[in-house]
Order: sequence, then C-alpha cells, then structure tokens
Amino acid sequence: MVRTTGSARSAATRELILAAAERLFAEHGVAAVSNRQVSEAAGQGNNTAVGYHFGSKTDLIRAIVRKHSLQIERLRGEMVAAVGDSSDVREWVACLVCPSTRYLAELGSPTWFGRFGAQVMTDPAYREIMVAESLSSAAVLRATDGLNSCLPDLPLEVRLERRDMVRQLMVHMIAERERALADGEPTPRASWEDAASGLIDGVVGLWMAPVSGR
Amino acid sequence: MVRTTGSARSAATRELILAAAERLFAEHGVAAVSNRQVSEAAGQGNNTAVGYHFGSKTDLIRAIVRKHSLQIERLRGEMVAAVGDSSDVREWVACLVCPSTRYLAELGSPTWFGRFGAQVMTDPAYREIMVAESLSSAAVLRATDGLNSCLPDLPLEVRLERRDMVRQLMVHMIAERERALADGEPTPRASWEDAASGLIDGVVGLWMAPVSGR
Repeated sequence: MVRTTGSARSAATRELILAAAERLFAEHGVAAVSNRQVSEAAGQGNNTAVGYHFGSKTDLIRAIVRKHSLQIERLRGEMVAAVGDSSDVREWVACLVCPSTRYLAELGSPTWFGRFGAQVMTDPAYREIMVAESLSSAAVLRATDGLNSCLPDLPLEVRLERRDMVRQLMVHMIAERERALADGEPTPRASWEDAASGLIDGVVGLWMAPVSGR
Repeated sequence: MVRTTGSARSAATRELILAAAERLFAEHGVAAVSNRQVSEAAGQGNNTAVGYHFGSKTDLIRAIVRKHSLQIERLRGEMVAAVGDSSDVREWVACLVCPSTRYLAELGSPTWFGRFGAQVMTDPAYREIMVAESLSSAAVLRATDGLNSCLPDLPLEVRLERRDMVRQLMVHMIAERERALADGEPTPRASWEDAASGLIDGVVGLWMAPVSGR
C-alpha cells in the first residue's frame, strides 16, 4: 500500500481506479471484468494501471472492500458499544444490519458497494476477501457473540444453516434495494432506515423460528 | 418451438445446446456468455447454432427454464392437491420450496439449474423470463393463495418486502448448496430433503416474525 513515489496525482489515480472497478464489478460481476477494462474505465491511457497501482485483481478487490469497511466498522463499533451487554436478539441483529444500510444512506444513491458485495460474495474465488476484510472485524465478532449468547439452543447444523440464510438475506436484499434505487424502480420501503427495520424483523424471525424434525 | 425440418439429429443438437448453455450461464452468468460461446461449448462447428435452433438469448433462456419448470410444476401440482385447503403455513411454504429441491435431488449432483436460476434472477434483463415461466404457474399461484390465506395481517410494504426476502432466500440457498455439492465442499445438511426442511423453517419464521414500528 505504501509507495514512496506516491504523489497527490498517484493518490487521485488510485481513487479513480477504485471507483471504476467498484462500479464495473457491481454491474457486470468480478469475473467478467478485466484489469485492462478497469484501467480504461478509469481513464488511464496505460492499460496496466491497475497492476501498477494495486497488483492483482485480488489486491484491487481487497482495497475496495477495505475502503468502505473502515467506515462501516466504525459505525458498528459505536452501535456495539451502545448495546453493551443486552440480551435482546433484535439489538444484536441491528448491529449486524444497520452499519451497512446507514453507510449507504449517508453516501446517497447511486451507490455500488451493495451490488459489489453481492457479486464478490457469490464468486467463490473472491468471497474469502470479503469475509476476511469485513465479516471478521472486532465489532462483527462482538455482535455475533452477543447474538449467540441470547439465541435459543440450536443444533450445530441449524446454526450454520441459519447463519448462511441470514448472510444471503443481508447481502442480496441490500444489493437489490441499491439496484432498484439506482434504476429508479419502486422499492417496498421508502428509506434505508425502514428497509433495515424490515430486514432486521425478518432476520430475527428466521433465527427464532422453531426447528422441525424430519 | 415446432420445426417441420426437425429430425432426431436436430432434437439432439437442441439438447446439447440447452445443456451447454445452462452450465455456462450457471457458472459464469448470463451476460458474460455469448451465443457463440454456447454454440462452441455444445460442439457445434457452426457458431450460429444457437440462433438457428433457438433464436435470441432470451429465447434460449426461456427454453432452459421451461425444460425444468414443466417437471418442477408437475411435482408442485401433486403437493398442492395433497395439501388441499390446509391452514398450516408450513405446508404451503413446503409447496413453494420442495418441488425444486426434490427435482434437484432426483437429477443427482452435479446439477446446474439452481445456479442458473440464481444468475437469471439477479440479472434484471432476464429475471422476468424466470418469473413468467416458473413463478407464475397455476400451482405456484394456488400455493401463494393458500399461504396468504393463513398468514397474519401484514402491511402491504411488509408483505412485499417479505415476499422479496423469501425469494432471495430460496434462490440463493438452493444455488449455494448446489455449488457446494458440485465443488465437493461441506454443506450444513446432508440431503436436499433436510436442507429443504431447514429452509422451510426459516421461511416460516420470516413470514411469522413480529413487525416493528420505527
């Protein structure tokens, strides 16, 4: 990340590349977009600009995730501190949902990070970057521990399965709402805050659902 | 669909193209794969084979969806008839979840239709094909009516939002399980039947969740 030759111009170029890559990956998928296309979309005459400034596509994706995660995790840290040692499932689920929706609301539509996240999470080659950079922060782990401490006792397979279901819901509901806003399509809820409230209700219902035998 | 020149050889070519397209779309996304690439993967020397046998990419996708939907909807029709006029939310949710999981179980891994469905449903240009061909069948409508008749009264925005959440859950949980099986990765549940049971529990919990005010 540190380049002693880095000037203001180099930093500006990096930002252009990050923005172009995030948008292209969000709209077309990670696998469908080459580093060359990112360089061109960022207005770089030199088609190897991504390689020069970031390295591999993996490094580029990590830099995009990191840029947003720093701010999302700051919001989450504040929420987790405010929740303290609550035993209310809804409060802990809110700590997992709201930092992303608040951050997107603050950025203002159109945003791309929601769809970018969905593309990265559905690509097995890159998913681990997202998990490592944004789903393993201290605040996420604290919120997960808090949630686990007030969930009913669940068989391990059910716990793993519901963790997967909740992750799918969060990733894709946020991506779909972002896409609808960007395309001027109707959304069930008027604001990110209301959408988050509905998503939290659904996630709580999912975690608390009775477990059927076969 | 009807070609008077259609011989057994033409029917076999169509099947080769359908299978190649389904796999390529499932693994790379619909937008990332051209009709030319499908023709090549199907072993057709003539790169315009897709156009000759199916027409546009939209027509090709519709043919893939239809091929599987006919069988899935037959299973659903049987389930809906057996459920009758039940007022049990879980039975109606099962009518929406199980036909797909049973069909994939019958085909045996590796399958591609689960991932194909997720790719089509996340592509706004093609989503409507899937909705029109497979989510608007008589049996789906009957199961949806049955479910609605036994759900609690929900504000319209919450009903729409939960319908979206349930759709995301079904599409992506099935696609992820199919991918894990194909890649030899671990899955929380040992069988499609158990995975369906867990998914139904989660969907029921989501539909029945209390609605929070702001």
